[in-house]
Amino acid sequence: MSQRIRGVLAPVVTPFKADLSPDRERFIKHSQWLLSQNCGLAPFGTTSEANSMSTDERVSLLDTLLSAGVDPSRMMPGTGCCSVPETAALTSQAVKHGCAGVLMLPPFYYKNVSEEGLYRYFSEVVQRVGDPRLRIYLYHIPPVAVVGITPKLVERLLRAYPSVIAGMKDSSGDWNNTKTFLDAFIGTNRPSGRSFAGESSDFDVFVGSETFLLANMRNGGAGTISATANVNPAAIYKLYAAGVGESRFENRESPVDSPSFKDTARQEEQQARLNIVRDVFSSGKFPSMIAAIKQAMAIYTDNLEWARVRPPLVELTAEQTKSLGDDLKAIGFTME
Amino acid sequence: MSQRIRGVLAPVVTPFKADLSPDRERFIKHSQWLLSQNCGLAPFGTTSEANSMSTDERVSLLDTLLSAGVDPSRMMPGTGCCSVPETAALTSQAVKHGCAGVLMLPPFYYKNVSEEGLYRYFSEVVQRVGDPRLRIYLYHIPPVAVVGITPKLVERLLRAYPSVIAGMKDSSGDWNNTKTFLDAFIGTNRPSGRSFAGESSDFDVFVGSETFLLANMRNGGAGTISATANVNPAAIYKLYAAGVGESRFENRESPVDSPSFKDTARQEEQQARLNIVRDVFSSGKFPSMIAAIKQAMAIYTDNLEWARVRPPLVELTAEQTKSLGDDLKAIGFTME
Repeated sequence: MSQRIRGVLAPVVTPFKADLSPDRERFIKHSQWLLSQNCGLAPFGTTSEANSMSTDERVSLLDTLLSAGVDPSRMMPGTGCCSVPETAALTSQAVKHGCAGVLMLPPFYYKNVSEEGLYRYFSEVVQRVGDPRLRIYLYHIPPVAVVGITPKLVERLLRAYPSVIAGMKDSSGDWNNTKTFLDAFIGTNRPSGRSFAGESSDFDVFVGSETFLLANMRNGGAGTISATANVNPAAIYKLYAAGVGESRFENRESPVDSPSFKDTARQEEQQARLNIVRDVFSSGKFPSMIAAIKQAMAIYTDNLEWARVRPPLVELTAEQTKSLGDDLKAIGFTME
Repeated sequence: MSQRIRGVLAPVVTPFKADLSPDRERFIKHSQWLLSQNCGLAPFGTTSEANSMSTDERVSLLDTLLSAGVDPSRMMPGTGCCSVPETAALTSQAVKHGCAGVLMLPPFYYKNVSEEGLYRYFSEVVQRVGDPRLRIYLYHIPPVAVVGITPKLVERLLRAYPSVIAGMKDSSGDWNNTKTFLDAFIGTNRPSGRSFAGESSDFDVFVGSETFLLANMRNGGAGTISATANVNPAAIYKLYAAGVGESRFENRESPVDSPSFKDTARQEEQQARLNIVRDVFSSGKFPSMIAAIKQAMAIYTDNLEWARVRPPLVELTAEQTKSLGDDLKAIGFTME
């Protein structure tokens, strides 16, 4: 079984020029900086404003990263659109180029769709891509997509495509929900099923906020894919690496009680410090966390261009920008 | 000022083949039949499963209709996607070919976006299309898109682009909401503003269900764009035409009290009959109204292929199909 992607990933923010077209140079530079901080790349996520871009733009931007020599085994691009053909096209591109996996939103236009309908949607994508290298991470983000991923859906998909359904990102913001998936699908609880490629596999749960990183790792999770990793990757990785990430495999069968997990006050303190940074961005004082993170990029890279977002998002006002700068300064935040 | 499209329009259901690709021949045939029933075409709406299709498929299917000789002045294709580039591309195609207007969803991925963000989104699309022939009908369908169109947003857009912002479709299912827009934006209440092309214009409100057709016309509305028009166009048009559609222009300044509007028991009865048909499809017994309408198409055209939907929607079960057939038979429904 090949090594899966895990740890800390950033849904890479997309830099735009004055005409709102993507700035390829800044995109490559930021991606390479993230990798240098031990942070994997989840381009085309919610924070990336992926759904504010066309399919063609997304295809072209992934090509840009690959052409720049970015290692595809460190990438999990977002590929979930509302339509099967577009999701399959973006997914095929990622798989063909050796990306570690894809982060897949459920189709999010129709609401109150059935589990059967979502099952058929993902099935159809898997069949169309038709590549045993495919690794899908289901993306659960009900505050935005409204349409969500349920344990029953995961169970059906795992039985049908055990080596393809590699895990999920839980951006529900609800630890109890994450815990439900961890309890149901990792270690010995995993439903049996025959593999797509004849091999068995694990179900890797990433939390959508580093606020839950320590709890996730203590319970056998795989890491975090978090907006704030764009600006705070080193500190998030430090907590992940502090005996947590490394101990994961040993802990697999009894993650909670594992003696190899060091429940130290130091880890709790690291977690608390991460939360303080996160709280600045999610304070509710800014039009969106995405705009606040981009504004922080503008401040700390001394490049105002970073503040730009595509509509329907709006950038921070001058007053909000000052408030953000002050808040970050007050907690001693730096982009290392 | 050129004549605006009004009356009864169908969000044309999209026929799919066994491999889920669009069936062009059936699409053309159904569209031509609708036109023969005095029903205009709003292809690529919610009922059309437009968001389950790729941008390329939508471009190609509109070309198919135009190549088949379908009159573009009877068409209002849906063009609203989550991204500005895709919405602008689809809109430009429609305008270039002389379509009467476009039905535009707001960008629906991000939730709780600001009025300013939505204003910028629509502005950007108008600027990119850059064609004085453009007529946008804003699409308010909060039960599905969640992101909605507010009176304040309409007011801002009307002031900035008075001849481009031509009206809206209200699929809120809430008559009070429709009434709010009618009261605010038609006749003398319309906010003043300079026209894109130097001409003033009206704001045409279409209701998203024929259930509200009589009320809409009594209050100066423009007609209805309704899913059930796919199967019941003649009867819906009959109510529209029964002194309602024709009297609209005379009524413009005082629509409610207009003596030329015949508030007859016959119209109320027509409305009640339309509601009975609608109730069968929206009974909640079926996985979706869209699947139920396609199933009725299958039954009444004797072509089972019509029942097919793209995931995440699912077709009716055998039992549900029987129930639908029985219910339609019980009310004496026919597709004329």
